[in-house]
Amino acid sequence: MSDNTLPDNKQPPADRARSAEPSLSRRRFLAAAGLGAGAAVVGAGPARAGSVPGAPDPNIVPVPGWTKTLGAPVNANPYGKPSKFEKDVVRREVTWLTASSESSVSFTPLYALDGTITPSGLCFVRHHGGEAEIDPDKYRLMIHGMVDKPLVFTLEDIRRMPGRVNRAYFLECAANSGMEWRGAQLNGCQFTHGMIHNVQYTGVPLRTLLDMAGVKPKGKWVLAEGADAAVMTRSIPIEKALDDCLVAFGMNGEALRPEQGYPVRLVVPGWEGNMWVKWLRRLKVGDQPWQQREETSKYTDLLADGRSRRFTFIMDAKSVVTNPSPQAPLKQKGANVLTGVAWSGRGAIKRVDVTLDGGRNWTTARIEGPNTSRAMTRFYLDFDWAGQELMVQSRAMDDTGYVQPTKQELRAIRGTNSIYHNNGIQTWLVRGNGETENVEVG
Amino acid sequence: MSDNTLPDNKQPPADRARSAEPSLSRRRFLAAAGLGAGAAVVGAGPARAGSVPGAPDPNIVPVPGWTKTLGAPVNANPYGKPSKFEKDVVRREVTWLTASSESSVSFTPLYALDGTITPSGLCFVRHHGGEAEIDPDKYRLMIHGMVDKPLVFTLEDIRRMPGRVNRAYFLECAANSGMEWRGAQLNGCQFTHGMIHNVQYTGVPLRTLLDMAGVKPKGKWVLAEGADAAVMTRSIPIEKALDDCLVAFGMNGEALRPEQGYPVRLVVPGWEGNMWVKWLRRLKVGDQPWQQREETSKYTDLLADGRSRRFTFIMDAKSVVTNPSPQAPLKQKGANVLTGVAWSGRGAIKRVDVTLDGGRNWTTARIEGPNTSRAMTRFYLDFDWAGQELMVQSRAMDDTGYVQPTKQELRAIRGTNSIYHNNGIQTWLVRGNGETENVEVG
Repeated sequence: MSDNTLPDNKQPPADRARSAEPSLSRRRFLAAAGLGAGAAVVGAGPARAGSVPGAPDPNIVPVPGWTKTLGAPVNANPYGKPSKFEKDVVRREVTWLTASSESSVSFTPLYALDGTITPSGLCFVRHHGGEAEIDPDKYRLMIHGMVDKPLVFTLEDIRRMPGRVNRAYFLECAANSGMEWRGAQLNGCQFTHGMIHNVQYTGVPLRTLLDMAGVKPKGKWVLAEGADAAVMTRSIPIEKALDDCLVAFGMNGEALRPEQGYPVRLVVPGWEGNMWVKWLRRLKVGDQPWQQREETSKYTDLLADGRSRRFTFIMDAKSVVTNPSPQAPLKQKGANVLTGVAWSGRGAIKRVDVTLDGGRNWTTARIEGPNTSRAMTRFYLDFDWAGQELMVQSRAMDDTGYVQPTKQELRAIRGTNSIYHNNGIQTWLVRGNGETENVEVG
Repeated sequence: MSDNTLPDNKQPPADRARSAEPSLSRRRFLAAAGLGAGAAVVGAGPARAGSVPGAPDPNIVPVPGWTKTLGAPVNANPYGKPSKFEKDVVRREVTWLTASSESSVSFTPLYALDGTITPSGLCFVRHHGGEAEIDPDKYRLMIHGMVDKPLVFTLEDIRRMPGRVNRAYFLECAANSGMEWRGAQLNGCQFTHGMIHNVQYTGVPLRTLLDMAGVKPKGKWVLAEGADAAVMTRSIPIEKALDDCLVAFGMNGEALRPEQGYPVRLVVPGWEGNMWVKWLRRLKVGDQPWQQREETSKYTDLLADGRSRRFTFIMDAKSVVTNPSPQAPLKQKGANVLTGVAWSGRGAIKRVDVTLDGGRNWTTARIEGPNTSRAMTRFYLDFDWAGQELMVQSRAMDDTGYVQPTKQELRAIRGTNSIYHNNGIQTWLVRGNGETENVEVG
C-alpha cells in the first residue's frame, strides 16, 4: 500500500492523545469507515478511498470552476433560498389521501432535516379550505361571549401588548401516522411522521387578551375560530387558555408564514395541531364546548366497539428515526450516523432508546441541542454497519416517565378504527444494500 | 359615552383578579393604549377607538372575502415563502459602501425581526468574490500541513462522522457598525447593526477532523481557506480550533444556504465573522499565522497614532434597540413594546439595561427566549409613551461582567480611524411624531 492510498479497515491509524469523540473514537471511525474517511494527499497522486487505490480524485487538486470565476452578486436574492442542489427537499402531498388540494395536507421532509428547528418553508401544511390571504391592516380579532367587555383588536394592538414571549413548540397533527393504524403503509418518514414541525413562536399570552376582556366566572371554554374559508372552530378548556396558549404573530424570527395563519395564529402547546387555529379571528368564551364538526365527527378516536373518545387533546410522547429511513437509505458500510426526533405534549423528552435489531438490544441515544418542554428534540446514535439487515426502532420517554408504546400495545386498547393519536413505535427494515422499508415487527 | 365606544385613557376598565401581565398591568395597558386596545362590540355598531367614536369599523362584522372563497391549494409552494404583505422585509445593500456587487454586503433587517432566530433567507451576506455555487458531489475538504496524515473528506465523509452537534451562535462581521466610528451616519439598525445573524448550526467539531489527521506538536495555527473566487483565508489559533469550532453543513434545520457557504462552512463561536470561512475547502496546520491579506491590511484595528492592533478576534458584548428605530418609528402614544438584541463573544448575556432619556435613568430589560453562550439574546421593555422626545439606548452586560461601552469611551482608546470592532452604545432619537433618527449623545 503506497503512502497516498488509505489503510483498509483492519489497519487503524496511529492513535492520538487528543482524541475526544464522544461516542466513537477516531480509531474506530477511521477503521469502521472502511473506505477510510479521507485519503492521504501527499505525493503527486492524491486519492480517496472508495475510488481505485492510487487513482487520482479529480476533485482534489485541480482548481474548480467556482474558484476561478466570480460568483453571484451579494444580493442576487434579497430574500434567500436554498441551493439548487437541494431542490428535492420540499413538502410533498400524497395525492390519493385527500379529495381536494384546498382541503389537503403536505408533509415535512423530516428525512432531509437536522437540528431542532423546522425551516418555515418546510413546515407541513394542513388546510380545510385553502390558504387565506389576509391583509394585515384589515385583520381584526374579536373576543366576546361570557366576558365583561367584548373587545376587538387590530394586529398593531396585539403587537403593542406587554409581555411578549418567544417559545419553541412542536405542532403535530392528530392524524400524523394515522394511515399506519392498520399496518405499515407509507414508505417514508416524510409521510408516516411528517405532519409535525417545530418552530420558535413570538407572541403574547392568550391570557393577556382574556384578562383584558374579563372572563366571567361562568366562562369555562373558549371557542377559537379561523378566518379562512373553512372557518375552523375548536373548543379549548379555559384552564389551558389561561395557562400557556399564545396569540402568535411571529415564527422563527419573522412574521408568520401565510400557510401557518398569517398574521395571527393560536399556539396550544403540546395539544393536537387542529386546535392551533390559523388566521385567528374570533375567541368566544362560553360555559361548555361547542361540539363543532372538528371535535365530533373529526378529531375523536374511534374505538373497536364503535364508540369514540372525544377531547384527547394532548399529543403523547413519540419519536421516529429519520435517518436511515426509506427516503434516506444507508449509503455505505462502516461509520454511520443514525438520527431522529422525539417530542411529548406532556413535557420534555428525557430519554430516547434505539434498537437496530427489532428490540432485542436497546441503546440510549445521545440527545443533542435544545431539549425544552413540548418542543422537538434531536437524537443521534453513531454506529458501525457491517452490512447486515437492521430492524431500526426508537422509543421516547418524557419527563413524566411516560414511555412511547408499541403499535401492538396501542391496538390492544384502541383497535384499528382510529385515524388519530397514533404514537406507536415505528420500525424501519434496512436491507443489506442499504435500502430501507416501512415494516412492522411482532 | 355609549356602550359601543371606548373609554378614554383616563377611565380604566374594571379590574380583574386574574390579571397577570409581567410588566404592565391590563389596567395600565388599556389606559395607556389611549385609543383603548380594542372596542366594545355589543350592540349594532361595533367600533374601534382611533376611529370616530360610534362609527362602525368595516373590518369587524362584514364577512371578509378571504372567508367567503377557497384559498390557495395546500402545496402551492412546496418550499414556502413569506406573505406578499411582508415583501419589504428583505436584505438590503448600501450601494455607495462597496465597489462591486460581488465584493459587497447586504444587511439583516433587524427592525422587522423578533425572537432569537434569524431566518435563513434574511441572514446578512458578505462576499469578497461572489457566491460560489458548489456541487456537493464534487466538494472536497483537505487537511494538511503539520499533521501525521493529510486527509481529504467528501461531504458524505463529514456527515458520517461521530459526534454531530446542534448549536446556536451569533455571527457578527467585525465591520458591523463600522461606519459609525466618526459619528452617527446610517439611518436604520439594518445598516448600523445588520451585519449579524443568529443561526442554529448542525455539524461536527473541527477537533474531530484535526484529531483524525493528527496535529503534530509543532502545529499551533490552522489556516482555513474558502473555495470561492476570493479564496478567503484566515489564521486560527490551534487552541480555538480544538475548542469549540464546528465544521457545519446545516443551518436552522436544513442544508447551509449557498450564500452562507453551502455545502460546508467553518463556525468560530464568538469570533469575528470573517473567520467563519464559507465554502470551506482547505485546513492547513502550521506553526505560525500566515499573515494573509484578511488579517493584515484588513480586519486589524487602526489606532489614532497609525499603529494597528491585529488579531482582535473576539466580538465583545454589544446590543441595539431594534424597535423603535429609524425604520420602525413609534406609531402611537400609549402602550408600546421596546425590543432589541444583545450578544457577546465571551459568553451569555446576563443583563441588558435600557434608557429612554439618554442615560439619566436606566431600566433593566426583560430577557426573553433562549439565552445561551455566544448566541443572540432578545430583550423587551414594555413602556408607555406620552409623546415626548426620547433618547433610546441599550447597554449589554455579559456573564464575564463586561459592560458595553459608550462610543466616547471607545474613541478615547481607539481613536476614529478604525472600521472594525465598534461595540459602542447606539442612540436613537424618537421625535414627538414617532419618527426616529440615528444620533449621538454627549
